Amino acid sequence: MSLGRNAPTNLTGSKTLARIGILVVSDRASRGVYEDRSGKAISDFLEKVIQSNWIVILKIIPDGAECVASALIELSDREGCDLILTTGGTGPAPRDLTPEGTRMVIGRELMGFGELMRRVSLDHVPTAILSRQLAGIRNQSVIVNLPGRPEAIDVCLNAIFPAIPYCLELIGARPIEVNSNVCNAFRPGA
Amino acid sequence: MSLGRNAPTNLTGSKTLARIGILVVSDRASRGVYEDRSGKAISDFLEKVIQSNWIVILKIIPDGAECVASALIELSDREGCDLILTTGGTGPAPRDLTPEGTRMVIGRELMGFGELMRRVSLDHVPTAILSRQLAGIRNQSVIVNLPGRPEAIDVCLNAIFPAIPYCLELIGARPIEVNSNVCNAFRPGA
Amino acid sequence: MSLGRNAPTNLTGSKTLARIGILVVSDRASRGVYEDRSGKAISDFLEKVIQSNWIVILKIIPDGAECVASALIELSDREGCDLILTTGGTGPAPRDLTPEGTRMVIGRELMGFGELMRRVSLDHVPTAILSRQLAGIRNQSVIVNLPGRPEAIDVCLNAIFPAIPYCLELIGARPIEVNSNVCNAFRPGA
Repeated sequence: MSLGRNAPTNLTGSKTLARIGILVVSDRASRGVYEDRSGKAISDFLEKVIQSNWIVILKIIPDGAECVASALIELSDREGCDLILTTGGTGPAPRDLTPEGTRMVIGRELMGFGELMRRVSLDHVPTAILSRQLAGIRNQSVIVNLPGRPEAIDVCLNAIFPAIPYCLELIGARPIEVNSNVCNAFRPGA
Repeated sequence: MSLGRNAPTNLTGSKTLARIGILVVSDRASRGVYEDRSGKAISDFLEKVIQSNWIVILKIIPDGAECVASALIELSDREGCDLILTTGGTGPAPRDLTPEGTRMVIGRELMGFGELMRRVSLDHVPTAILSRQLAGIRNQSVIVNLPGRPEAIDVCLNAIFPAIPYCLELIGARPIEVNSNVCNAFRPGA
Repeated sequence: MSLGRNAPTNLTGSKTLARIGILVVSDRASRGVYEDRSGKAISDFLEKVIQSNWIVILKIIPDGAECVASALIELSDREGCDLILTTGGTGPAPRDLTPEGTRMVIGRELMGFGELMRRVSLDHVPTAILSRQLAGIRNQSVIVNLPGRPEAIDVCLNAIFPAIPYCLELIGARPIEVNSNVCNAFRPGA
């Protein structure tokens, strides 16, 4: 797992070092039954796309709405994450409760994220409509549910990341700069 | 109205005979004022698409949120339906309350179903955005709101059905097998 | 600001003169810090599209959920507006609370409006997924959140307006007739 670009030991108070939480939600990964590939897929994407300094805070937890909610609160309130990306637990199976946990802690929902992620995923698999991914804002943190499979993660991150830098700016989070060769970040009026 | 393929008299306890509820929501149809064409359109589609054994449980009820909610509870909890397809009552008219009744009984929403059904319907009529169709899961039942007009039902079922077999598998419902010549059902990793 | 076509002084009781509320939600515009261009963009569009008689009721208010909710109640319940178009306050910034205020007063949501507006806006800017616009019905009023920028307003109104006349008819609001050369209004079965 990467610790981000130029990651120092601990700088929650820094105004420029963006803090990105990766929350892996999986019963099996949390018991160490198998190696987590999803968190790695997310950090590989971030490594490729973000040019400014950032640090990763990684958590691996079992499935469950309360479990997801309290991990998100910790990453947002205590760890001061600007962006939190979850992976896993968004399907229709009984233990898939990541969206429920997310909804418990966000103040306002960003409906467009789930809509777009499902739409672009539908170009790959018809079962993309089973994904219940959502996104929202908790104070100065943007929280986005990503799917569990690495290939699906990439499809979703490519679709939504162009809107992330401007979103962080609007909510007063720490800024990030992206590599315009791999991600066409956009700021209206810029 | 078809009773499904190889339908026996009553086998709620069978592990292989899929039970499909069709809930026709219409003030007029429930009073017998006119013949129901929507339920027939749904069962015709199922007949064409499903290859394994299944049975239909049909109910025709008047509009209203409570009315829809209690019929759905009966079809899911008592009749043990694996899949419940409603038709009617999803528009903006005052008596259109099928989505409200559905939301009352589902534990988790499948947002992608409504999004996709509205999107594909928009290719046919610009008023598709007036549809408030949703879908969700109640225990081991998948519940999907379909539109009221037979032509619109077909458009929607063609769009969503490829994801239904895998969804039933994920929630632990009885499996169905579809005819791959008419419906490209998909299971990731299969 | 246009007062609509053939606008009389006050005719809340008229059965044919459609009443259209425009609610400008902006801290700065409500303090008169800058001239409102969004309300003007909306009324210019209506002027171009609506052929029957209509009148505008314009309100400019500061951001905030309660503020939006009470203005919408006034436009719907007291002013008897058939259609209410809001502009501003739909983004992720802390003061953007128009969707929250809207949700407080609508009885039923029309999910397809927000989905379509975000989708067509995505063809112009990738940040369209940050918009949290929604729409819904309060008694005999249709309420639609529009974006704040005039260019984005036009993109959204062009996408949704074909469904507005039929929607007004279905909820029992006063009818409007649109110019078929500029807006392809649709009524199923017509």
